[in-house]
Amino acid sequence: MEPADEGISLDEVGLATRNHGMPLEALRYDLTPAGLHYLLIHYDIPAVDATSWRLEIGGDVDRPLELRLEELHERPQVSRAVTLECAGNGRALMTPRAVSQPWLLEAVGNAEWAGTPLRGVLEEAGVREGAVEVLFTGMDRGVEADVEQEYERSLPLGEAMRDDVLLVYEMNGRPLLPQHGAPLRLIVPGWYGMTHVKWLGRIRVLTEPFEGYQHTRAYRWRTSEDDPGTPIERIRVRSLMVPPGIPHFLPRTRRVAAGTVELEGRAWSGHGRVTRVEVSVDGGGSWREAELWPEAGTHAWRRWTATWDATPGDHVLSCRATDESGGTQPLEPDHNVGGYANNAIQRVVVAVVP
Amino acid sequence: MEPADEGISLDEVGLATRNHGMPLEALRYDLTPAGLHYLLIHYDIPAVDATSWRLEIGGDVDRPLELRLEELHERPQVSRAVTLECAGNGRALMTPRAVSQPWLLEAVGNAEWAGTPLRGVLEEAGVREGAVEVLFTGMDRGVEADVEQEYERSLPLGEAMRDDVLLVYEMNGRPLLPQHGAPLRLIVPGWYGMTHVKWLGRIRVLTEPFEGYQHTRAYRWRTSEDDPGTPIERIRVRSLMVPPGIPHFLPRTRRVAAGTVELEGRAWSGHGRVTRVEVSVDGGGSWREAELWPEAGTHAWRRWTATWDATPGDHVLSCRATDESGGTQPLEPDHNVGGYANNAIQRVVVAVVP
Repeated sequence: MEPADEGISLDEVGLATRNHGMPLEALRYDLTPAGLHYLLIHYDIPAVDATSWRLEIGGDVDRPLELRLEELHERPQVSRAVTLECAGNGRALMTPRAVSQPWLLEAVGNAEWAGTPLRGVLEEAGVREGAVEVLFTGMDRGVEADVEQEYERSLPLGEAMRDDVLLVYEMNGRPLLPQHGAPLRLIVPGWYGMTHVKWLGRIRVLTEPFEGYQHTRAYRWRTSEDDPGTPIERIRVRSLMVPPGIPHFLPRTRRVAAGTVELEGRAWSGHGRVTRVEVSVDGGGSWREAELWPEAGTHAWRRWTATWDATPGDHVLSCRATDESGGTQPLEPDHNVGGYANNAIQRVVVAVVP
Repeated sequence: MEPADEGISLDEVGLATRNHGMPLEALRYDLTPAGLHYLLIHYDIPAVDATSWRLEIGGDVDRPLELRLEELHERPQVSRAVTLECAGNGRALMTPRAVSQPWLLEAVGNAEWAGTPLRGVLEEAGVREGAVEVLFTGMDRGVEADVEQEYERSLPLGEAMRDDVLLVYEMNGRPLLPQHGAPLRLIVPGWYGMTHVKWLGRIRVLTEPFEGYQHTRAYRWRTSEDDPGTPIERIRVRSLMVPPGIPHFLPRTRRVAAGTVELEGRAWSGHGRVTRVEVSVDGGGSWREAELWPEAGTHAWRRWTATWDATPGDHVLSCRATDESGGTQPLEPDHNVGGYANNAIQRVVVAVVP
C-alpha cells in the first residue's frame, strides 16, 4: 500500500462502491439486517454450487475429512451474536492515507451467526502433536502484489480450538448470503474481519507458521515501510454513535433541533468486556458517562445511551469506550503504514438550530 | 453539484461507503440477492414502526384514504421482476466529474417486487378531473442545497395510472428490508432509481406540476450551469458484463487464462425491449453479436452470453446493447452537469496469460 494524502483515486472508489459499510443509523438495530452489515471482499464473490461443495480438512491430522454441507448441519449447532469490524476501518481518516479500501467509520456489523464449533471438527480429524496453526482457505481467487492466490488466513492452534470459534452457515436465522461466504465461513469472535474466512473450501493443520500474503504483507502494524511489523489480530475497543438529527446530503454533517436529544450508539472490543462509554459534546475537550445497556454476548456490541441538552450553535459530538483490559480510544489516529486498527474517536459535526 | 476533475473527496467517499453498488460478478444472478442490490439513500434510513405506520392518500381526490400495512396486503397482489438503476450510475467516469455519489458502473440491481397496483388505490380514492400529477413523499428527511425537506418525487398522472406501477412491500419473496424502503415503496418500471420513492408516507394528487428540489434542482439534464435543463426520467439502454477471470485487489483489472472464455452479462432499457447485444474485445473498435436469452419481463434485465477465444496479451472488453426504440450505447459519456444517465460502454481491462 502506497501512502497518499491527495484526493482519493478512482481505483479506491472502485473498492468503496463494492465494499459497502454499515450506514451509521443502523447502529440502532441490535442485529444488523441483511444487506446493512459491512462487507470487505478482497477478490470476487465466487460462484459456489452448495450441492457439490465439500469442506476438506487435512494437513497434520490423523483422519482427513471431507464434509458435505448437510453433514455440517447434522453436527451440534451453536448460535452466537458477534460484532465484526474491518481492520481497515478508519483508514481514510489517517494522514497520510494508505491506498486501499477507503473506509471512514462504517466497516462494522453485528449478526447472529449459527454453525458448528470448529473444535469438534478438528477433534474428529485428530490434530497431531506437532501442530501449531490451522490454515483456512477460501474459494475466492485474485492477485495481490502480483501474487495469484486464494484468500488464506491461519490461526494459532490455541485460538482455533477456542470453544466459541464457529464454522457458520446461517446469519440472523437465514442461510448465509453469497456475499457473506455461503455456503460456509469461519467466525472467530474478537478478531478483525480478515480472520473470518468466507467461502471456506479447505482447512489444513500446519506444523509451521503460515507465511502467506495476508500475514506477511497485509494486516501488519508497521511504523515505516522498512518495519517488518507485528500482526493485526484482535479488535481494538471502539464506540460509535447514531448521528443525531438529519443529514445534509453532502457532506453528511447534521442538523438538530434545540432541546433534549437522546444519543445512542454501540461499543465493542476484542480485548474484553466494554466497561465504560463516555460522551463529549465539545470535540473531546470534556467527557461525561453514558449509560451502558445489558451485554448481549462477550463479543457482541453493547448499546449505550446518553441525554444531551442541545443548545443552538455548532457542536462536535464524540463517544469513547473503555474495555476491561484498560484499553480506550485515542483522540487522534495511531498512524501505521497500512492504515489499520484506527480506533480514534468519532467526530459528528452538528448544527443545532432553534 | 460542483464539477471536479481532481481526486475524489472524503465527502464523496462518505456517500460511497454508505450507498453501495452491486459487485459486477452479481450480474450472474437472475434476481439480485438481498444486500447485493445497489442502494442510493439521500438522507438516513428512517426508523419506521410498521404497526403504527399509515399511508395517507389525499390531495385532489374525492375520498382521502389512510391505509394500514395489513390493508395493503389484503388488496390484489402483483409480483414483477424489475431492474432499477441509479440515474447517477457512471458519474465518476465523466470528466469533469459532478460532486455527488461517485458511482462507477455498479448502481444497478434486479429484484422481484411484490405489492399492489397504485392505480387501484388511486381509483378507490377517486382522482378528480383537474389532476395532473401524483406526489410521493418518503419519511426520510434531510437538507440539500440548504433546503430542509422530506424526499419527494412526483409522476405525471398518466405514468402513475400505468398498470405496472406498484406499491411494494416485498422484495424477492421476503418483507422489504429497511434500506429498501420498508414498510412500503413505489416501483415505476423503466424509470431511474430516484422515482421509486422509499419509506412512503403520503401520496397526494396534484392539480399543478410539483416543483420540489428533486425535480427543479436535481435529476435534470443540463448542458451548463445556466441551462434550466430537462427532467431525467426513463433508463437509457445499457449492458454490463461479469468481469471474466480473477481480479487484482486494486485496481480491479482482470487476469484470464488463455483459451475459450464464456462471457456473460445483462442488458436493460427503460425505452423498450432489448433487441441486440454486441461484444468487442478490442476496446470498441469492432463488434460481434452476443446471444440474447429469453426475456424475464418487460422491465427486467435480459441475460446475454458470448464466447471469446482469449489469446495471450492485453485486451479491453466491452458490450453494447440496443433497444427496440433504436437507442444504443455510446462509446464515450454524453456529458451533463449533474453527471446523469451515463450509458457509455463498459471497458474491462484484461491481461490474458498463457
